[in-house]
Amino acid sequence: MIIFGVDPGFALTGYGIIEADKSKLRLLEAGCVSTKADELFTARCEKIYNELSALMQKYKPDAFAVEELFFNSNQKTAIMVAQGRGVAVLAATHNKIPVYEYTPLQVKQSVAGYGRADKNQVQQMVKVILKLDKIIKPDDAADAVAIAISHAYGYRGAKII
Amino acid sequence: MIIFGVDPGFALTGYGIIEADKSKLRLLEAGCVSTKADELFTARCEKIYNELSALMQKYKPDAFAVEELFFNSNQKTAIMVAQGRGVAVLAATHNKIPVYEYTPLQVKQSVAGYGRADKNQVQQMVKVILKLDKIIKPDDAADAVAIAISHAYGYRGAKII
Repeated sequence: MIIFGVDPGFALTGYGIIEADKSKLRLLEAGCVSTKADELFTARCEKIYNELSALMQKYKPDAFAVEELFFNSNQKTAIMVAQGRGVAVLAATHNKIPVYEYTPLQVKQSVAGYGRADKNQVQQMVKVILKLDKIIKPDDAADAVAIAISHAYGYRGAKII
Repeated sequence: MIIFGVDPGFALTGYGIIEADKSKLRLLEAGCVSTKADELFTARCEKIYNELSALMQKYKPDAFAVEELFFNSNQKTAIMVAQGRGVAVLAATHNKIPVYEYTPLQVKQSVAGYGRADKNQVQQMVKVILKLDKIIKPDDAADAVAIAISHAYGYRGAKII
C-alpha cells in the first residue's frame, strides 16, 4: 500500500510518501511544495494543487492522510493554511484517492507512542521506523511522513473525510 | 463584462453573477451551493468546486470577485470556510478567470456608500441597483451579488490575487 501524507501549509506544504508492506515501511519521497509570498494567491493555490497532483500521478497512492487543523495563534496564517488544505484535499479527491484525517495527538501517539511527544522525538522515531541515516528535513516534510506512518499503523481513530 | 461574485462558505457558498454594460448592471443568476454536514468533507469540497465550475462554464465570466476572510469567532467554522474558499478560488483559476479580492468594508462602501452599512442596507441597495422586485435571498447569495457589484463599480482598492 502506498500512503501519501500531507502537512498542510501555504508557504510550505509538506508531503511524505511511503510504501507499507505489512509492517515494513519504506520512504519513497518526502519534501515540500514551496510557494512565495510575492506570487499571486491564485498561482500559489494552483502550484500546491499541481505539484501534489503530479506526485499522486507518479506514485498512485492508495490513501491520502492529512492532519486536522487546529489553531490558537495567528488567524491570518490559519486562514492561508486552511485554504491550502482545501486545495490539497481537492487534489486527492480529483485523483480519486480516499482521504483520512488524523489529529496531531493521534499522529504523536501512533509514531512516538505517546501524545505529548515533542517534534524532535517524533522526527527521531520517523528516522528509526524508516531506517534512515538522518532525520527528514525540513520539519514540514518530516511531519507529513509522520502522518503517513500513522495511517500505515492503522490507528483506530482514523477518520475518513 | 460578466462578473462572478462569491461569498465564501462551506455549508452555504453564495454566488452572484451579473452583467455590467458600462454603468448598467443586470443580475444573471444568484444562489448558493449547499453542502450537508453528513456528507464527507471531500465530497463537499468537490461539490463546491464542481457547481461553481459549471456556472463559470455556463456564464464565461471575465472576473471572479471574492471577499477577504476575517474571523473573530468560531475557529472551527473559520477553518471550514477558508478551505471552501481555497477550493472556490482554485475553480476560478482552473477556469482561467482572474480573481479579485475585496474586504467587507470595501463592499459596503462600494454598494451602500459607506463602510458601516448593515446587512439589510446592503441588501436593499443591491435590490435598487439591479432593479429587482425584492431583496435577494438567502443572505449568502445577496452578499455574493454585492461583491460582484463592487467589482463592477471598479472600486479603487481592488486587489488581484
